[in-house]
Order: sequence, then structure tokens, then C-alpha cells
Amino acid sequence: MTLHGCQIIAGRAVAAGPDTFLGRNPATGEATTPPVHEATSVEVDQALEAADAAFDDYRRLGAERIASFLEAVASEWMALGDDLLAQAHAETALPAARLTGERARMVNQARLFAALAREGSWVDARIDHGDPSRQPVPKPDVRRMLEPIGPVAVFGASNFPFAISVGGGDTVSALAAGCPVVAKAHPGHPGTSELLGRAIVSAAEKSGVPAGVFGMVQGRGHEVGLALVRHPLTRVVAFTGSQAGGRALFDAAAARPDPIPVCAEMGSTNPVFVLPGAMAERGAEIAEGYVQSVTLGTGQFCTNPGVLLAVEGPALVAFLDRVAAAAAAVAPSTMLNEGICRAFHGGLDRVRQTHGVRVLRESHARADRARAEAGCAIFTASLSTLEARPELWDEVFGPSSIVIVCPGADDLERAARRLHGHLTASIHATAAELESNRQLVAALERHVGRIVFNGFPTGIEVCAAMHHGGPWPATTDVRYTSIGTASIERFVRPVCYQGFPQPALPAELQDVNTRGIWRLVDGVRCR
Amino acid sequence: MTLHGCQIIAGRAVAAGPDTFLGRNPATGEATTPPVHEATSVEVDQALEAADAAFDDYRRLGAERIASFLEAVASEWMALGDDLLAQAHAETALPAARLTGERARMVNQARLFAALAREGSWVDARIDHGDPSRQPVPKPDVRRMLEPIGPVAVFGASNFPFAISVGGGDTVSALAAGCPVVAKAHPGHPGTSELLGRAIVSAAEKSGVPAGVFGMVQGRGHEVGLALVRHPLTRVVAFTGSQAGGRALFDAAAARPDPIPVCAEMGSTNPVFVLPGAMAERGAEIAEGYVQSVTLGTGQFCTNPGVLLAVEGPALVAFLDRVAAAAAAVAPSTMLNEGICRAFHGGLDRVRQTHGVRVLRESHARADRARAEAGCAIFTASLSTLEARPELWDEVFGPSSIVIVCPGADDLERAARRLHGHLTASIHATAAELESNRQLVAALERHVGRIVFNGFPTGIEVCAAMHHGGPWPATTDVRYTSIGTASIERFVRPVCYQGFPQPALPAELQDVNTRGIWRLVDGVRCR
Repeated sequence: MTLHGCQIIAGRAVAAGPDTFLGRNPATGEATTPPVHEATSVEVDQALEAADAAFDDYRRLGAERIASFLEAVASEWMALGDDLLAQAHAETALPAARLTGERARMVNQARLFAALAREGSWVDARIDHGDPSRQPVPKPDVRRMLEPIGPVAVFGASNFPFAISVGGGDTVSALAAGCPVVAKAHPGHPGTSELLGRAIVSAAEKSGVPAGVFGMVQGRGHEVGLALVRHPLTRVVAFTGSQAGGRALFDAAAARPDPIPVCAEMGSTNPVFVLPGAMAERGAEIAEGYVQSVTLGTGQFCTNPGVLLAVEGPALVAFLDRVAAAAAAVAPSTMLNEGICRAFHGGLDRVRQTHGVRVLRESHARADRARAEAGCAIFTASLSTLEARPELWDEVFGPSSIVIVCPGADDLERAARRLHGHLTASIHATAAELESNRQLVAALERHVGRIVFNGFPTGIEVCAAMHHGGPWPATTDVRYTSIGTASIERFVRPVCYQGFPQPALPAELQDVNTRGIWRLVDGVRCR
Repeated sequence: MTLHGCQIIAGRAVAAGPDTFLGRNPATGEATTPPVHEATSVEVDQALEAADAAFDDYRRLGAERIASFLEAVASEWMALGDDLLAQAHAETALPAARLTGERARMVNQARLFAALAREGSWVDARIDHGDPSRQPVPKPDVRRMLEPIGPVAVFGASNFPFAISVGGGDTVSALAAGCPVVAKAHPGHPGTSELLGRAIVSAAEKSGVPAGVFGMVQGRGHEVGLALVRHPLTRVVAFTGSQAGGRALFDAAAARPDPIPVCAEMGSTNPVFVLPGAMAERGAEIAEGYVQSVTLGTGQFCTNPGVLLAVEGPALVAFLDRVAAAAAAVAPSTMLNEGICRAFHGGLDRVRQTHGVRVLRESHARADRARAEAGCAIFTASLSTLEARPELWDEVFGPSSIVIVCPGADDLERAARRLHGHLTASIHATAAELESNRQLVAALERHVGRIVFNGFPTGIEVCAAMHHGGPWPATTDVRYTSIGTASIERFVRPVCYQGFPQPALPAELQDVNTRGIWRLVDGVRCR
């Protein structure tokens, strides 16, 4: 397939504007795509108009056809074959094995949401039958279910060109809900995004789904994204990226004449708490796991553990030796793009120059900046240094982390109480320690979205029980997840029908439960 | 009980500031309370600090004790007896029958949320068991449930001194979720609020619930409310009131260093669509119901039908005659306070002076402005006038409404497509008309929260299936309801536990379902 570098609007390639940019291979600096056309405000408008026009027809296709469409999308993505992997590798330098795995996740997400749509209970149907004879006033017949919110603006992430981008969880969960999507491709992988977007168009054609249900716009700067968020027809925004980017979109959405919700996942430092017993029992194993988690995917995960807190003593000394050895052995690897690489090295400089911070060890091999490489860097600092310099909590996106040395085990809980919001926290402890540190768990419950026991936060299971979210600044809305089936909740709203005759009700709310979904009928859960 | 006019902080009456104001009887202008102390910023801070300090103990009391506490609150409210009704009547001029009914609703809401907490399935527990042998990577054990979000700022409404105020649905749903509440009493009924708040304190004492779980602050201007919203410990805001007030709080919350969600219900004009068949069959009945709904409670409902759209013809002429007769017969009654009365009459003047608007009829008896009275006023205008003067959609809070005369039945759907957000819309139609006007229903689904068939929007059933919300400007977040059991969703957030041993998990997430709640276990809904 020859890339066109255009916007996708109602199934067609459109490029009206004069400005273009080039995708770049971070390892070589070479162009990876034909010139990519920066979307104009007219094109953003056209994409939203097409999405809005398609909305009513799309949402009323019914669950089975929406599910089949998502399955067709998954098939079209797989049919792109090695071309897709090669394009993504050229644009992101992510290794083939990682990309193959991430493609599987992307495809499985589409199928997971197809299954969710087909099963149908996500609409949370509730029926309260009326009672005309009730005194002093008759009881009305009231029914409600969740319905799609309308056109969704999806912002692809740099670090997951498949699973959290144009074809990622945001797009497929919005489509499963019955919402049209206008995706802003990440400028780090415009060609990959185009391939995925065109595959969605192809699936829509084959499935008889209105073409406007998916649109994609390209843009390098902030203008296109802000235009998407400010457009009157956009109903909700899903974003994964930096804190500055998420905040800018949030502020733009809040400043609208009619504010709309923004679900921005902005990453965090994901502290790991190691209790003394676990350190004594499994210090070496924790050291290996920690460095692996810090350096996985060149450290480019939202859930990367940027801070580890442990208690001083001989076990910690041995642990640090193992961490240092493991860190030294990490081979530098190419980051997603030159800008991220520059920001990473700037972050390292900032940490390195912080009074009280010591470099524990860096990768033995030197990172080749011409290839946008990053090596591993592990720092140490005391808890008092961390408390005096809270900017050490700021995320350094890449393969680095700081080990915080605490005077006593009580200090772990104290530190946990003072956390700001994170996506995750991890606790390494013996069973007895976990039992006797319930206050630590309680403190973490207030400040993070997911607590991992005797494990590491990277590697997110896509399932019903996953929560990938957390208090600000991890996300803009603590009540939502961006990964797992519950992420569909971002894109729906309740609609209530009072006194409606049966045939005029949506199938999900009629007395006869033809869909066979779980419902709450007069207070009883049943199907 | 002698009123003290103070803030309630951690169970104690506090009044550190020099500024006071007086509650006023709208019918007489007389003071209804001792001087009420305007909360200081230090007091706002103390209330939030107390709430935050109580949070961990409160949320871990367990469902049974939280439920019992809410039932004790309900009992304490009832134990206030006629004193409560008398105080509310003096402060709001709402008639005894209405207040008695509203008190029953308030008390029932507390019991409803007690039952919801006790039953427990609202936590939406999800368990995905791990599989250590899965290839290529082991599957982790992942479990999540909804947990309380933290201290909630509740803003009492002027128009429901019981059911949507200090003791209203916001407070009891937040408490049921496990959240502490700091309520801002509405300055229109400070004494009623104090009685309700002190009853909550009394119930907390008797139930062994930490005193900080409930706080109440008084204030006449904007400062106290803004201080509540801006306070670092406030986690979410619940508000019912004007659009200007809701927008101000929303903007303040969005401008925080760490933005927090605001669920503001700001009212709307709740259009009623009357199709020709229904007009021919039931015009007289619809006319009676319409004027009743417009004037119920002196028109002081968020769901008041401010616009009715119908099709011109002989049936409409007869309908307007009936409406005029019914409107003329409405006796003026006292509004909630002098400010609301002034705003209502200002709104009437604005509508009256709009080119193309005609007064159909006003109450025959003259409203006594010295008693803050309002009579009924019904206007008519053409659809083209409405389209040319969209400010006619602005809510006039009180017993007035505009009948919009449309040239044809198709125009109803056209008008529906152009709606901005409303809490409700109503359709009067024959069964055949409803069937042949699916596009009208589809249009309304996009723009309102609740669609009422052959009925009127006032009178909200408090139940699981109710949705009291809608797109902006009806609310600040279309995804939430402020009435019904689903309103608890405003105050909760998911927390996820990965790899936890059984005893360290919350009871709701352990393998053995001791709570007997409905859960989603490995994709299967069960209990």
C-alpha cells in the first residue's frame, strides 16, 4: 500500500492545506513517509461533521453489526501483515518482537470490545416498572440505559503505535459504544497511523458502516489537536501523552462555551515500596525485576517505575550492588524519536545535578545520540532529599529510576501518605509484612489507581478488572480507566425513558429481554 | 432546638468570623433565624481537614455500619418533627403539604442509599484470576472495585430545602459511598440547613461515626463556595442551582493546579412536543396538565416545562383557550425568596418585550410583590420567532412558559434537532405518531437526559432507573445523574489490586463472596 500522507475524512483521502511534515526514523534520521499534510481547520471541521452525520445511523446499527465491524477492523489490521510492522519499526525503532506483541494486543482489544458489544450488558439497563395505583401519586414507568455520547476525539500516543493510538483501546472502545471517532495521529508515526486508519475505512466499507464513523487528521503542532477539542461537535476527548499536553487539552475543553469531558492519561512515576522482609528474602530477584521493568521498551511506558523506596541496611547494600550490575549491563537502545531522547537526557541532567542525588550506575555501553539511543541510569537519594526536592517525583520518560533510601520501615508509609497521584504503586513485602502494613496499603489506595503486590507495574493486562488511571496528575479524571473493558464508560451517558410504550423503547429496555443482557429490574439483577 | 447560626465542624458549632447575615421569610421580609455567621476561609479549611482526617476511618467502617448510620440520620431528621417543617416554611414559603412530601423524599433517599450500601453490588467488583502458566507471559491476578473518592463539597439548592440540600441526595449518596461531606448551606434556608446538619451530627455520635464525616458552612456570597471548591482536600463537587453559579464553580475547579470533577445540575427549559394526533385527542387534558406542571411549586423546579411546541390548526386554538383559562385561574403564590421573585419578573419583562412574542394569559389575580409572589404567565410565539431569538430558550425560573406555534409536524423534529442540552423533553403523541416519529425520539436522545411520553417532566421518581442530568447547559457532565441510586457514581473511583493475597484484599474482592454481592468473575456475572 502506498502511503498518501493525507487526512481521512468520511473514507476519503483529503489534503487541502499547504503545510507538510515528514515522519522520521529515529535511528537514522531518514524520512519514513511521503510528506504528511498538516490538517487544516476546514478539514478538522469536515471530519467532525462527517462523524456527527454518521452518528445516528451508526449507533442504531445494533450490537451485532457493530461487533462484526470491530472484528472486520481486527482482520484488516492483521491483513496489513509485515508492512505494518515494518512501517512501525521504521517510525518508532521499537523492536520487531515488541511490535508483534503490541499488534496482537491491538487486535485482541478490537475483538474484546466486539465481544463486549455483542454481549451487551455494558449498557447497565435498569427498569423500574410503574404503579398507577400508588398513593399519593402514581409511580411512573422509568427505564434507563447507557447510550453513546457522540463524536470522540482520540489522541494517539507516541509510545504505543498500535495499542494506544489510532487503532488503540480508545478507538475500539468508542466504536464499541456506538460513537464515531476522529483520531489525531501522533506525528511520531504518521505512516503507521495511516495504514491503521485506512484499514478501518476498508472494514467499514465491507461492513456497510457509514464512512464518517472514522476520521483521522495529521498534525505536528498543537493547532490541529486544539481545533479537535474546541470543535462544537466533539463530545469527549481521549488522550494518552505528556502532562503538558493533557493539561492543554483539558484547559481548552474546560474553556469551551459548553465544556466537554477530557480523559487524559498523562503518566506518572509509579513508586515501588520494598519492605525489609522482602528485601532480605528476595533482594536479588527484586533487583533484577526492577531494572527489567525500568528498561523495558527503553523505559517508554506510562507505568515505568521511576522511584523505588527501600529501607537502609545491609540487605539494601546488596540490593544496590545487584541493581548496579544489572543497570551496567543494559545495552542502550533507540528511543521513539529524537525529541523524546533529548528530553530524556535533559531529565537525567536535571536529576544528576540535584543536590543530594548520587548516580548509582549507568549502562556500561555509551548511548549513541545520533541514533537517539538511551542507556539505563539508576540514581540514589535519601528520603529527606526527596522530601526537600519534590521535583524528583517528576517523570523522566525513559530507562531511569531513583532508589530512595529510607531510615526505617515507618518512613515508607509516611512517604506513601504524601504521594500525589500515580497510575500505580507496587509493594514488595512478605505476607506478614503486608498484613502488618495495612496503613501503607490504605495510603496507596488514596493516591494511585492500581496497587501491585510483589510485582512490577509495567505490562498491563487488558481485562475487565484492569484499572489504568489514577488521581491527578496521572489523569485528568480519577473516575475513568483508559485500558480494559471499563474504558467504554468514558464514551457513554445515561438516557432515560419515562412512560414509553414497549415498541418505542430500545430493545435493551423492553420487558422481553431479547438481548439476554443483565439488567436491574425493580431492584433485582437478572437476565 | 435553638439555632446557633454557626458552621458545623467535626461535630462542633464554630463561628470565628465577624460577618453575619439573616435568613428571611420571603412572605413577610422578617428575619427567620438568629444572625448566621459567614464562614471564614480558616473554617472552610478546618471543615475539609476534619473531613479528610475522618475519611480513612469512615470508609473502613464497612457497609453495615454506614447503612445504619444513614438510617440513624433519617430517624434524626424525622425526630425534628414539626419544628423542621415550620423552619423550612418560614424560610422558603413552600406550603406545608409540599414540605411534608419533600421531607418524606429526603428521608426515603437516606434509607434508599442505606439499602444500596448494605446490598453492596454498587462497587462493581470485578475479578480476573491469574494464570501463571500462560504463554508468552503469565497472566496476573487482577481485581478492582469502586471506592470512595474522598471529601465531597455539596452545594444545597434553594428550591428543595430538604431533598436537594444539606440533607439531600448529594449528601446521602456521598455518605453511602464512604465519602465525608462538607455542605454549603443555601443562604435562603440557613436555619433549615442547621437543623438537618445538627441531626446528622447527632446520628454520627450515636452511631460511632467519626465527627469529621460531616461539616457544614454558611455563606451568602460566592467566597465560601469558591473556597470549598478550591480547597486542596476537596475531591469532587456536587451542585444544584443556576447556570451562572454552576459555571463559576466548574471554572474554579478546572483552574485548580489539580482539577477536580464538578457535577453541577443547572436546570433547563424542558421542552414539551405535542403532536397533532395527541392534540386532537387529548388537547384539553394536555392543557390542564401543562399549566399544572408549569405552576407546580410556583414553577420552581429544574424540570419545569418552559417551552411547549405544537402544530397550528383548530385543535391548537382550542388548546390555547384551555391553557389561557387554566393560567388565569392560577392563584399567585410566594416564591422562595425575594431575589428569585425579582429575577422571575425581570425574566417575564424580557420575554414580553421580545419582538414576536405575545402574552397568551396571566393569572387573573395580581401578584403581591411585597410578599414575593408570582402568578402564572403563558406566552405564545411562532417557531420562526424562537429560531430568530434563541434567548427565548433561556430558563425563566418560575411559573411561566412559552407555547411555540409550528407550521407543520415536521417542524417539531427540526426544532428537536437544534436543541441544546436539557434535563428532559416530553412528547405527547398517539402510539401511531410515536411509531412514525422515531426521528423525533432519536433527536431528543441526543439532547436530553430523560424523555417523557404522554406526561410532564416535573415530579421525579427517585429510583435506580432515574436519570436527572443531560448535556450542557443542563449539567456540567452529561455522564452523571444527581437523582436516583446511580448518583453514587459521582463520588467513587476504581481501585485495582494486582497479585494480592486473599486476606489483604477488601472483602468485596476476595474469592469467597462473603458480602454476597453481584460481581464479574472471569467474565461471568455471579454472586
